Amino acid sequence: MKKQNKNLAALTPPLGWNSWDCYGPAVNEEQLLGNAEYMAEHLKDFGWQYVVCDIQWSEPNAGKEGWAYVPFAPLCLDEYGRQIPAENRFPSSAGGKGFAPVAEKIHAMGLKFGIHIMRGVPRLAVHRQLPVLGTDTTCNRIASSDSVCRWNSDMYGVDFRKPGAQEYYNSIFNLYAQWGVDFVKVDDICNTNMYPHDPYSAEKEIEMIRHAIDQCGRQMVLSLSPGPAVIEKAWHLRKNANMWRITDDFWDQWDLLLHMFERCEVWQRHVSEGCWPDCDMLPLGRIRVTIDGVGEYTHFTHDEQITMMTLWSIFRSPLIMGGEMRDNDEWTLSLLTNEEVLRVQQHGKNAEQVLRSEERVIWKSDAEDGSRYAAFFNLTKQPQEISIPLAELELDGSCHVRDLWKKENLDDVAGILSATVPAHGAVLYQLTQI
Amino acid sequence: MKKQNKNLAALTPPLGWNSWDCYGPAVNEEQLLGNAEYMAEHLKDFGWQYVVCDIQWSEPNAGKEGWAYVPFAPLCLDEYGRQIPAENRFPSSAGGKGFAPVAEKIHAMGLKFGIHIMRGVPRLAVHRQLPVLGTDTTCNRIASSDSVCRWNSDMYGVDFRKPGAQEYYNSIFNLYAQWGVDFVKVDDICNTNMYPHDPYSAEKEIEMIRHAIDQCGRQMVLSLSPGPAVIEKAWHLRKNANMWRITDDFWDQWDLLLHMFERCEVWQRHVSEGCWPDCDMLPLGRIRVTIDGVGEYTHFTHDEQITMMTLWSIFRSPLIMGGEMRDNDEWTLSLLTNEEVLRVQQHGKNAEQVLRSEERVIWKSDAEDGSRYAAFFNLTKQPQEISIPLAELELDGSCHVRDLWKKENLDDVAGILSATVPAHGAVLYQLTQI
Amino acid sequence: MKKQNKNLAALTPPLGWNSWDCYGPAVNEEQLLGNAEYMAEHLKDFGWQYVVCDIQWSEPNAGKEGWAYVPFAPLCLDEYGRQIPAENRFPSSAGGKGFAPVAEKIHAMGLKFGIHIMRGVPRLAVHRQLPVLGTDTTCNRIASSDSVCRWNSDMYGVDFRKPGAQEYYNSIFNLYAQWGVDFVKVDDICNTNMYPHDPYSAEKEIEMIRHAIDQCGRQMVLSLSPGPAVIEKAWHLRKNANMWRITDDFWDQWDLLLHMFERCEVWQRHVSEGCWPDCDMLPLGRIRVTIDGVGEYTHFTHDEQITMMTLWSIFRSPLIMGGEMRDNDEWTLSLLTNEEVLRVQQHGKNAEQVLRSEERVIWKSDAEDGSRYAAFFNLTKQPQEISIPLAELELDGSCHVRDLWKKENLDDVAGILSATVPAHGAVLYQLTQI
Amino acid sequence: MKKQNKNLAALTPPLGWNSWDCYGPAVNEEQLLGNAEYMAEHLKDFGWQYVVCDIQWSEPNAGKEGWAYVPFAPLCLDEYGRQIPAENRFPSSAGGKGFAPVAEKIHAMGLKFGIHIMRGVPRLAVHRQLPVLGTDTTCNRIASSDSVCRWNSDMYGVDFRKPGAQEYYNSIFNLYAQWGVDFVKVDDICNTNMYPHDPYSAEKEIEMIRHAIDQCGRQMVLSLSPGPAVIEKAWHLRKNANMWRITDDFWDQWDLLLHMFERCEVWQRHVSEGCWPDCDMLPLGRIRVTIDGVGEYTHFTHDEQITMMTLWSIFRSPLIMGGEMRDNDEWTLSLLTNEEVLRVQQHGKNAEQVLRSEERVIWKSDAEDGSRYAAFFNLTKQPQEISIPLAELELDGSCHVRDLWKKENLDDVAGILSATVPAHGAVLYQLTQI
Repeated sequence: MKKQNKNLAALTPPLGWNSWDCYGPAVNEEQLLGNAEYMAEHLKDFGWQYVVCDIQWSEPNAGKEGWAYVPFAPLCLDEYGRQIPAENRFPSSAGGKGFAPVAEKIHAMGLKFGIHIMRGVPRLAVHRQLPVLGTDTTCNRIASSDSVCRWNSDMYGVDFRKPGAQEYYNSIFNLYAQWGVDFVKVDDICNTNMYPHDPYSAEKEIEMIRHAIDQCGRQMVLSLSPGPAVIEKAWHLRKNANMWRITDDFWDQWDLLLHMFERCEVWQRHVSEGCWPDCDMLPLGRIRVTIDGVGEYTHFTHDEQITMMTLWSIFRSPLIMGGEMRDNDEWTLSLLTNEEVLRVQQHGKNAEQVLRSEERVIWKSDAEDGSRYAAFFNLTKQPQEISIPLAELELDGSCHVRDLWKKENLDDVAGILSATVPAHGAVLYQLTQI
Repeated sequence: MKKQNKNLAALTPPLGWNSWDCYGPAVNEEQLLGNAEYMAEHLKDFGWQYVVCDIQWSEPNAGKEGWAYVPFAPLCLDEYGRQIPAENRFPSSAGGKGFAPVAEKIHAMGLKFGIHIMRGVPRLAVHRQLPVLGTDTTCNRIASSDSVCRWNSDMYGVDFRKPGAQEYYNSIFNLYAQWGVDFVKVDDICNTNMYPHDPYSAEKEIEMIRHAIDQCGRQMVLSLSPGPAVIEKAWHLRKNANMWRITDDFWDQWDLLLHMFERCEVWQRHVSEGCWPDCDMLPLGRIRVTIDGVGEYTHFTHDEQITMMTLWSIFRSPLIMGGEMRDNDEWTLSLLTNEEVLRVQQHGKNAEQVLRSEERVIWKSDAEDGSRYAAFFNLTKQPQEISIPLAELELDGSCHVRDLWKKENLDDVAGILSATVPAHGAVLYQLTQI
Repeated sequence: MKKQNKNLAALTPPLGWNSWDCYGPAVNEEQLLGNAEYMAEHLKDFGWQYVVCDIQWSEPNAGKEGWAYVPFAPLCLDEYGRQIPAENRFPSSAGGKGFAPVAEKIHAMGLKFGIHIMRGVPRLAVHRQLPVLGTDTTCNRIASSDSVCRWNSDMYGVDFRKPGAQEYYNSIFNLYAQWGVDFVKVDDICNTNMYPHDPYSAEKEIEMIRHAIDQCGRQMVLSLSPGPAVIEKAWHLRKNANMWRITDDFWDQWDLLLHMFERCEVWQRHVSEGCWPDCDMLPLGRIRVTIDGVGEYTHFTHDEQITMMTLWSIFRSPLIMGGEMRDNDEWTLSLLTNEEVLRVQQHGKNAEQVLRSEERVIWKSDAEDGSRYAAFFNLTKQPQEISIPLAELELDGSCHVRDLWKKENLDDVAGILSATVPAHGAVLYQLTQI
Repeated sequence: MKKQNKNLAALTPPLGWNSWDCYGPAVNEEQLLGNAEYMAEHLKDFGWQYVVCDIQWSEPNAGKEGWAYVPFAPLCLDEYGRQIPAENRFPSSAGGKGFAPVAEKIHAMGLKFGIHIMRGVPRLAVHRQLPVLGTDTTCNRIASSDSVCRWNSDMYGVDFRKPGAQEYYNSIFNLYAQWGVDFVKVDDICNTNMYPHDPYSAEKEIEMIRHAIDQCGRQMVLSLSPGPAVIEKAWHLRKNANMWRITDDFWDQWDLLLHMFERCEVWQRHVSEGCWPDCDMLPLGRIRVTIDGVGEYTHFTHDEQITMMTLWSIFRSPLIMGGEMRDNDEWTLSLLTNEEVLRVQQHGKNAEQVLRSEERVIWKSDAEDGSRYAAFFNLTKQPQEISIPLAELELDGSCHVRDLWKKENLDDVAGILSATVPAHGAVLYQLTQI
């Protein structure tokens, strides 16, 4: 029953918040819980539920050199080489309680709790030769000495050929289950082309992690990063994960957004229950905050934000808010709480790109009630009239048209659907045959 | 309505015969019609309908140097640079009748007629500066001088940027429509990575061909070769073609068959009405016949033939028989006329690889009546017991089991499905929940 | 004695003129002879001797569509498929005299005559099935049907495996010998990585050409284009050619000039008698002239021109003037007639890069009299002081210093040699130990 | 005077012994000194002088798991993170004396002493945050966290951008100077393509090492491994090193020997005083000895050994004996003590490949007395007659011929030099014009 269980963890694409875009490696307990409270108050009713603590929660000094990782940082470990939260940043973890108190508070708000981990075993645990829980081996005997991340010095990869390798992964996921973790974002693992001298290893680490979750007794969403995921490995990803990044880190730059249309084209047929190709977090609202409190608002224009939200929604990417939500303005909050758009993302079916050129993109999908969704995207720097014969949307005759972002009914159309779309903007319509 | 029309040409994966595996570049009218008659008599009732004449039907000397193409062969052309059948090989084409008489005979048998073409315009037409029908340009002005096939010297690619390029493709497909062609296999075009210095051109030639078919007034199946098709281009292929080769040329060698499991894994989610990833022709029965009549029977063992037919069927590849059918033995004919297996290929749904390792592969799909198909493949050189929990096939409790190749009901199973599968062999079961 | 002969053709790096940079594919007899006369009058005494007619002298319409090659142009051929000059452009070639009259006139001026050819056999000769001189085969039987140039549609490669292949090359070089050709620039052949599906072929064509020259009874300089030549193939190039391009086409752009320092670093140890890595023509003076007479002066600044001339000279690249010399201004002529700089190029020994960074480059070589040459190059956009310990130039104590471009003696130096070098400029000194 | 000093360390290609081929990572003091004594007695008079201790002399347990490196082995370090000899293996190093006592003994024999190091800083020193001598930084601040060796877990690369990086390298070479080291083989550094994500780093580490040697006050030969070195970086290698490996690890297999002809072709013009492209150690005599004393004699046939010694000698590779010399048989010793062959290696000039095909290779070089050396190599499995016109060796008329391996004068030859060469064998002749 393995596969059924795996997909049950995320029957619809997850809606949540992640600390990276606003706080980088340095988020603390107050910020985490503060955003959880905001979500409970403003977003939960729209379906948002995951609150995810991103990278380096075991590093006491994270953020002290800006967002850069301190090389060879002295992570907080337990006696089995497992990372535990840095107490100075997560005070409730004191006394060996780990993330259990945080998880409990978030659960009490009716939400779910997630954490980020790097694949592998801490280098510190390796060089200290710490024991692997439940085995008579030590961390240095399961580590792969040349399997290191390009951008972070915390871990060594775990060598699946070594006795104790699976037990190590079991030991950390059992700890997470005990804490009450509902969502795990595993990093340095998704793009299996990253380490061309040994691509097979990343696949094996994914399988060990899948197995560790299956045995831990708690349902967890498994999210893999960073992308771009390798399309030839789609079957393996669908088999083992719930979400996988189809792009490298996404930020508020138009060229990255433009490039996502190509990624969605490639991955569109791999979207299904429990299997969610992931366009990455939404860099909306206030982001890039340092520990001194310096931050800035997203560089995306309003129209670009609409384009992003529309593409993520019709494609059915998970929506993971990246900004400090307590600083949301009304516009930002409105993007996250349009229930008509969220319905496209949560319940659309058969999403498909209809057309893609240098100038424009059109997508369609099916609503639960048999009506059709259509999204027009203007890739140019000028407003543009975009049209498509209704037949290309598999519609006949005439249709009622509703603009989902504006929540307005437009004039009925026959034969051809047209719209004037702003520069770098999008429209999202629901079309009901008359 | 373009897209709907395109898929209507092949609502189920095509069943047919192609002359290449038996006659290479040298098939003649007698052989073509002889195989058509065989099909009408023995296979038509099982759904087989396409009779396809493969490469170089316009080359009078094809086959005189074995299966090798004569470099710079003097193809038969009409005054617009369009290839016409070589009269010495296709006598009924005399007097400018082209393939119309052959098509008429095949249609009269209740079958459909297909031809092969290379993408592009004949080099001869280019160097003779022949006019492009319906334009005031000439073939040398639409050809791309460095777009040449690696293995055949007949054609230059057509440069989509040139006035008259689309008209040239229209002119040839209008001729084929006039002849009564139902199926066109276009070669040197499918693997868009073949020509890395200009990959975009092949895509544009595919689009010109799609457009030429759409305007010609006759429904035609569009089949693209050779593979491996590029998975990143799946959307484009689905948009424009009915079948596309996912493999380089396939022959009766185990390593090629073994490699097909990987190809099917990659392409499985792109199989749908009118869109058929293609595992290539079936090198069964008597193949590799020279013009002197020398040929041989397939090198595949019976078990390997079952493996091939089972994979092609559950994956829903088109089935295009490659051997000289008039020489079929009883075994070969039986492979093509098992209506229970053909039903899996024609009407299975949601085919999916369940498991793939070095030793074995398991696939499943859904039957129309709600029962489940399951195929076990033994990749090793020894007989092997293969098992799977029914739950992995999304079945509960107990099932009736029918062996589709043997057309026998087996004992009911509960919990686990097991079978002993011969070396390089396969079993194909239908499982009906009790 | 093959190798000795080969090097004897170019004991010092050739000095000459080539028609490409000024006239592209369209040079005519008047222009060719006019530049020869200019050379005889102004440059011959400084060692300049080669007058080379570049590509497409057999194409009557060359230049009518600007510098673009007309696809599938109807080249002038003799009955053996050998290109002959287009009479409308080279009137003296009428009556089958080919380039013999032009060569004779150039020889009478005390100069030498060169031509450009593309590797291979004309496509026209192939499709007309013309005979190969001295054989009973035809051009279509020696051509390689998929060996085509990327940028020009005139030729097919010659397949060394085919009987008659060597005879074809012999036939064309025998014709050139008969005309009195002293220098052959063979194109589409030097960068053996250009055609990755068949790199071996280009090597074999080079060997066939070497053999054809060796047997033709006339000494000819063999120059190979385009680059970049492949450094792993240096031994093969040294064995067979006299000059080979180490760069793609060079024009009057700073980034191309900047990149040449890297190429010279790589190739410096392959410079020797009869073996001249080639930095390409000098885009100096009036260049890019159309058949309507529109042209322009080089975009290089005077300092950049000094940099180019200095690098080419100390590295000992051939110097092949590219501009229409009859339009030279005094500055341009002065660059070509500085006998002290030309001595560095003709007779320097052991040239070696001393240092290369983002900001500067230093080279040295040995003069015949035991003194040392040193060149300083400023790669930045600002004037820059450049210094080097004399010991790094293998000099001790104190030195006399002569500025070769200014033909001035400077103050003696001791210990350190310094100079202020203008932006993108160079200095070239001769240092004589005291 | 930097460059002059660098080349003075190795005016002729080094002759020596290295512990790797016989003892892998586990050589001990007795073995090292035992081989030094053998060299002093049997080889010193022929020019052999270097005794080199290969990898992991600071690892107490090396060899206990065979030749495999123990992952994350606890190396012996001083308080500045510098490796020191493991006392259990090198007892004379006790009391902080390092390799000084060993060096002293070897010097007393009239020989020179060398050691192997991996580029970088010990991971142990990094994770222990040990200070860098003479700075106020620590090892973790100069290490590059993702710069790790593929096959050995001892070190992190040193990041040249970090303050203290050069000082670290100075600190280790100052220690080696103090010990009396004459030769340093630096590993994991030569093939700058090994780490494609950051190739520039390896170059910078080479420069730091060059600088560290220049400042340490003791002349040392700098040898870089492993290969294949990158030919595009030849200038940089010549500028900084004395020897650099042009091949991956070489062992006693014919295919590796065969492949060396291609490497020597590529590198032949980079051989000069102080600059020695290196074909790797000679796997001759008794090799592959474990700490239990199990070993074996080279798998090369006698003829293959002659081929190896002849190629290394005429190309002028360093000759570094790899076997346990105290177990040499007479044949093996004879290969190392043929003074006529060693003269080719020590004093030949202008070595050049004359010819290379699938079947045979010919090289030539110039002797000091104006005579010519010629080597014929038979690459096939059958004896073969090999011939070359004397003119191709730049010889005229007639010659005396001496067989250098047999130390015999042969009959004079005129016009053509021929020899029957055994399968996989070679001959080496000296030719003196009459």
